[in-house]
Amino acid sequence: MMLKETEFKPMQEEQLSVELIQAQYAMKETRGQSNAKSLLILVNGIELAGKGEAVKQLREWVDPRYLRVKADAPHIFDHKKTFWQPYSRSIPAEGQILVMFGNWYTDLLSTASHVSNPLDSTLFDEYVENMRAYEQDLKNNNVDVIKIWFDLSWKSLQSRLNEMDPSEVHWHKLHGLDWRNKKQYDNLQRLRQRFTEDWIVIDCEDKISRDQQFAQHVLRKLKHLPEHQTKAKGKWKQAKIPEILVNPPQVEISEKDYKEELKKLTSKVSKALRFDDRNVVIVFEGMDAAGKGGAIKRIVKKLDPREYEIHTIAAPEKYELARPYLWRFWTKLQPEEKISIFDRSWYGRVLVERIEGFANDAEWQRAYNEINRFEKDLFDSRTLVIKFWLAISKDEQEIRFKSREETPHKYFKITAEDWRNRERWDDYLKAAADIFERTNTDYAPWHVIATDNKQFARLEVLKAILKQLNID
Amino acid sequence: MMLKETEFKPMQEEQLSVELIQAQYAMKETRGQSNAKSLLILVNGIELAGKGEAVKQLREWVDPRYLRVKADAPHIFDHKKTFWQPYSRSIPAEGQILVMFGNWYTDLLSTASHVSNPLDSTLFDEYVENMRAYEQDLKNNNVDVIKIWFDLSWKSLQSRLNEMDPSEVHWHKLHGLDWRNKKQYDNLQRLRQRFTEDWIVIDCEDKISRDQQFAQHVLRKLKHLPEHQTKAKGKWKQAKIPEILVNPPQVEISEKDYKEELKKLTSKVSKALRFDDRNVVIVFEGMDAAGKGGAIKRIVKKLDPREYEIHTIAAPEKYELARPYLWRFWTKLQPEEKISIFDRSWYGRVLVERIEGFANDAEWQRAYNEINRFEKDLFDSRTLVIKFWLAISKDEQEIRFKSREETPHKYFKITAEDWRNRERWDDYLKAAADIFERTNTDYAPWHVIATDNKQFARLEVLKAILKQLNID
Repeated sequence: MMLKETEFKPMQEEQLSVELIQAQYAMKETRGQSNAKSLLILVNGIELAGKGEAVKQLREWVDPRYLRVKADAPHIFDHKKTFWQPYSRSIPAEGQILVMFGNWYTDLLSTASHVSNPLDSTLFDEYVENMRAYEQDLKNNNVDVIKIWFDLSWKSLQSRLNEMDPSEVHWHKLHGLDWRNKKQYDNLQRLRQRFTEDWIVIDCEDKISRDQQFAQHVLRKLKHLPEHQTKAKGKWKQAKIPEILVNPPQVEISEKDYKEELKKLTSKVSKALRFDDRNVVIVFEGMDAAGKGGAIKRIVKKLDPREYEIHTIAAPEKYELARPYLWRFWTKLQPEEKISIFDRSWYGRVLVERIEGFANDAEWQRAYNEINRFEKDLFDSRTLVIKFWLAISKDEQEIRFKSREETPHKYFKITAEDWRNRERWDDYLKAAADIFERTNTDYAPWHVIATDNKQFARLEVLKAILKQLNID
Repeated sequence: MMLKETEFKPMQEEQLSVELIQAQYAMKETRGQSNAKSLLILVNGIELAGKGEAVKQLREWVDPRYLRVKADAPHIFDHKKTFWQPYSRSIPAEGQILVMFGNWYTDLLSTASHVSNPLDSTLFDEYVENMRAYEQDLKNNNVDVIKIWFDLSWKSLQSRLNEMDPSEVHWHKLHGLDWRNKKQYDNLQRLRQRFTEDWIVIDCEDKISRDQQFAQHVLRKLKHLPEHQTKAKGKWKQAKIPEILVNPPQVEISEKDYKEELKKLTSKVSKALRFDDRNVVIVFEGMDAAGKGGAIKRIVKKLDPREYEIHTIAAPEKYELARPYLWRFWTKLQPEEKISIFDRSWYGRVLVERIEGFANDAEWQRAYNEINRFEKDLFDSRTLVIKFWLAISKDEQEIRFKSREETPHKYFKITAEDWRNRERWDDYLKAAADIFERTNTDYAPWHVIATDNKQFARLEVLKAILKQLNID
């Protein structure tokens, strides 16, 4: 069941326009504030219901400089693309408004009504639920979402088709179903009835009422600018720190054994990565000097740089801060990128941002679920996520820091910040423990590797990759 | 003829690494400074010459956090994409270094050697020349470019292919030619001999020398951090201000004639735009309140919002300022966007930026040619550029400003800045005159429309579009 508007009253056009513009400006001013928000307007519905006209009318009432309209042709779902990937780059920054014509629901409906290969209804419902969850993550991260279904009865649709300029038919046919086919129309209506209850349905028989309703819904959303939730909901349950983080096992390996095994493994790993038909995302986290760079180097040893990309993650830039935390990772991960390696990652939210207070309690505490959903979406899109925590002992870190300070071409690797982070050693261990407790999923498990012996650690990393790729 | 390095001396690895890192940091520090620069490293050459190995070795010598490596599969040229479009988003920001494996030269060579449809050599040479010009624009806008050809003799290539692990062959075959085919090899060598002289050729027989030469070339480029050119080269030759800007003709049109003609024209224009097989970019410039918004509204009147996108151009953001001025337009124009309308545009460089001093003399004075090249590239990629200057009289502007101040839902359209711009009226007229003088090209002509009568102006805009689309 979807809500239907009943308490709708038309407003004076002038009044509506003034209020819309004021609300636009008020929202624009929230950028960087404690009630910052952007608004994403998802527009779907029956052809000829007048989505386009309603958006054009809205554009005339608002300040058009601050309303972007984006329309994509539908993307039929395929296996290596999450439903949000084609759109993530467009997610509006704080203060912005975006109308999205083509969106994940367009794609879902197109995929579901695909003649040769329709979606079954269980999968359809799963998608709808994932979309709702994704939108909830957007909302929690200051991107408010409003979803409007422009509805039109079969009868009215047919009479509008009859009245249409024949040269326009061609264009309309390109976008969607055969609107003369009652079975297809009914099927679409049946599918959209399975959408979640937060959709707003606008009956488009009457054009003036349609445009007014649409604009008033947008106005109501724009005006809603609550302060952000910053406090945690309850007491935080700190996970127990695993022994391997406190006392990483010390192991020995002979130079000869290392070299032999390394050679074998690098070659095996490169082939395994290259010929797996999934995309692979490899994530490295761990204390400074734990050996992330060295491990990455061995993974790519036998690969050609055209086969992979290494993403080195530093502090976000200003334009990234104006969007959801995960946004810069959504946009970095491209479906056509076969092997992506992250030197630090989205776990920064629950590591440095948690510890240094860049994220407030509400933000970092809900981030575990956001991250899990993100990784699940990747997994469902045939992208394997392999996660490493490199566990170094505090003593060994000190030895490496000092050695870096004494080696001219390594000196750049060690900064005052590294020494400061070291002072928060225990906080990082706690944060790591919580990460393992909450994000060690079936679909994206953690590999915790003891790294006091660098050579041993590198071999372990390679073995873990093979294991997760099911190669023995 | 390409230059060959003769005076090459290997450096101590440690020394080379330290110098590279220092140079990296020095360049990183230039961000926002008067010697700001980024570095783009284009890497091409013969398969198995060791491009990948050399880049990996460079990554080990430098601070890998500040060296991005990007590799795309080749894009065969098609008609609606300029050669720079697939790469423009990746152009590095000030302080950054990017190695581009797949790049416009890869695409050119792939297109030229395309079996079924090879490029003829005149077209090939034109592309090479356009690429050089584009790179010069990058350099002038703080993106330094270095182009390296990794060369390998036929004999060595064959012996490396013989030594190769058979499972790797599959991968290598995917990227490029049949390297066992001497004719294809010779053809490639012949083609790259037609490249410009600024290529650096590295002979890759010896691996150590190859990696050293590559790194040393990069080091030399990194170290070169001259102060930017800010002064103009000579005295500026101001164009004469056309009469239409000073005294836009006053015309009358009856309400009835306007409505009738408008209806006819909007319908004609929407069909013309929709069914033209080119992409169309429509640009609006002109004084504040000249009627840009109203004209745009009539163009899209009969279009569906899924058919076009309106780009409203405001001041650049910080991350945009760290790239060439045209960058934000390169990235906004997507080949799959059929109709793009710009409410203000790249002409901001030679209007507001010139007048307010946001661009220095050298910058705005060379911008005319940069813009011409940009529009020519679009034209050559089957994208029609239609440019409008809406010419309002100073008196009429005042009337419209005052009316805006008195109308509640138009009040937002008028700000103190608009009144300030009005004080610089004559500067804007001069700047406009120079624009017409220098950017009124065959492939992208200007339409100057008198707009004191809004209705008349809207009809004129629609007629001009039809005219440039060759519709009568």
